[in-house]
Amino acid sequence: MSDLPSRLHISEEGPREGFQIEPGPISSSDKIALIDALSDTGVEHIQACSFVSPRLVPGWADAAEVVEGFTARDGVTYTALWFNDRGLQRACEHKDKLTVRGSIHLAVSEPFSISNLNRDRDGNLKAVRQYLLDHKTADVAVEDITLMAAFGCNFAGDIAPEQVIASIQDGIELATESGNTVRSVTLCDTMGWANPHLIEHTIGAVRERFPEMKIALHLHDTRGLGIANAYAGMRLGVAEFDTTVGGLGGCPFAKQPGASGNIATEELVLMANELGIETGIDLDALIEAGHLAERIVGHSLPSAPLRGGSLGSYRSRASVQ
Amino acid sequence: MSDLPSRLHISEEGPREGFQIEPGPISSSDKIALIDALSDTGVEHIQACSFVSPRLVPGWADAAEVVEGFTARDGVTYTALWFNDRGLQRACEHKDKLTVRGSIHLAVSEPFSISNLNRDRDGNLKAVRQYLLDHKTADVAVEDITLMAAFGCNFAGDIAPEQVIASIQDGIELATESGNTVRSVTLCDTMGWANPHLIEHTIGAVRERFPEMKIALHLHDTRGLGIANAYAGMRLGVAEFDTTVGGLGGCPFAKQPGASGNIATEELVLMANELGIETGIDLDALIEAGHLAERIVGHSLPSAPLRGGSLGSYRSRASVQ
Repeated sequence: MSDLPSRLHISEEGPREGFQIEPGPISSSDKIALIDALSDTGVEHIQACSFVSPRLVPGWADAAEVVEGFTARDGVTYTALWFNDRGLQRACEHKDKLTVRGSIHLAVSEPFSISNLNRDRDGNLKAVRQYLLDHKTADVAVEDITLMAAFGCNFAGDIAPEQVIASIQDGIELATESGNTVRSVTLCDTMGWANPHLIEHTIGAVRERFPEMKIALHLHDTRGLGIANAYAGMRLGVAEFDTTVGGLGGCPFAKQPGASGNIATEELVLMANELGIETGIDLDALIEAGHLAERIVGHSLPSAPLRGGSLGSYRSRASVQ
Repeated sequence: MSDLPSRLHISEEGPREGFQIEPGPISSSDKIALIDALSDTGVEHIQACSFVSPRLVPGWADAAEVVEGFTARDGVTYTALWFNDRGLQRACEHKDKLTVRGSIHLAVSEPFSISNLNRDRDGNLKAVRQYLLDHKTADVAVEDITLMAAFGCNFAGDIAPEQVIASIQDGIELATESGNTVRSVTLCDTMGWANPHLIEHTIGAVRERFPEMKIALHLHDTRGLGIANAYAGMRLGVAEFDTTVGGLGGCPFAKQPGASGNIATEELVLMANELGIETGIDLDALIEAGHLAERIVGHSLPSAPLRGGSLGSYRSRASVQ
């Protein structure tokens, strides 16, 4: 009755997304240590940093130092995030280590867009046009749409699948204008509004309208349903997930201090292991990286396996007894 | 494709199970305040206290004071836990407020039974025989089996559905000997080993062997899969869940300091609300009770809605804007 994938492709976003909500400064060497620890877990993809305005996000003023500092490991794709030409140019200076590719960022909820990006829908479409022009000039492909607030919004309330379709349509039109072809969409539950049924309805609607589109899920655990939503997505064959080690993160623009961040990479890997789905990730090594993340931020993180441990470790001990 | 129930029957175990792992003493008045707050949320069933040896569990030496102190509310069933005749006698002194009913407690894992109850399988069956005799003498029905470690064990490793069936068979035979009829079984994921597939396999096997048996799930979130496991159970029509407000608890015998407790009542209610399943519980009132539980234990609890808030509250605000 389900269409579980045989392998998950996990994008580890802890180093980039995870630290932006932390109150204290995180040193470049700590960021590098976490990226290096994650590189040793078997994860395929790490989003390493943000090339954003140091004025708006002072915590990423050191993005270049971080990229220069980590050790790129064979088989791991390292990416970064940016929103404007200055960021793109900074990323392009690190093509030796970074895979430079763009993504059209749209918020399904206009009130969230105003709060998060300080732009209404028209302002955002205009900004995306400029973004696409800049990427064309830099010869960087943009084949992905990132849809924020795709399942609901603290400011706008519920989001219907039809609104998601309309935003994807916006993104496709902008991409086509600029000579790009959209191949994937990342549906972000930015403020933790999703539930298993809504995941099913939204993914079903997107697939019906755009049958060739690859769908990724970026889920937050704001209200505790993150892993159930991931399971609902996996049952529909979704194989691409953004997660953060330890469950680092949380949306600094959602006006919910202390709210949980992304779903924890450890929990998704543990579930995949138990369901017989490959991830390529060594869960015990990942849990070690999670403990490192806790030492870096100086507080415990929400990921349950950081305290409960992997099942593999208990199975080994049980079989010895 | 799923058989979601139209209504959940939630047994709130926070007051009883939740405090046993807390290091500090919890005052009787705090316990009473939490029970009273929970009584106002619309929950159907509250397990209020344990009548266990004050020597083994000093935190429940005040069980009688707690029962005398709380205000029994119409429509709410209050129960207690005990393991021997002394506990049963103490519970029977409070029949004005407590619904006194027994449950055959068995651990599917013998190593866990030894660690938790200090008895091997034979010792445990002998103890259950005595328990059933005591209940017959007191004219208290025993129609339920509580199966601990039904999905895996930190000491024994994996638990197969066949072992669950065998333990239920043990319980039924003991009940029958004593003139009782078992009508329900509570499958406990005491140490957080379950995953959605195992939930499906085990429930499927139990239903095939015992088609008339009502199945309840008592899930712990030790490794972060609790809510996904609850969703898997709900998809099979399971409607009876034990949960704790705030996610209070954790198994003191599992040798995992800091591991998460039961699944949080707030998260299950929130998921049920979003799936259109009745619970009778006011989620915002429940979140208030969760904040009270946090003040009582003096630390934050794992339930995400305690920080993320209900969706209803955000929907109301969004519709006003």
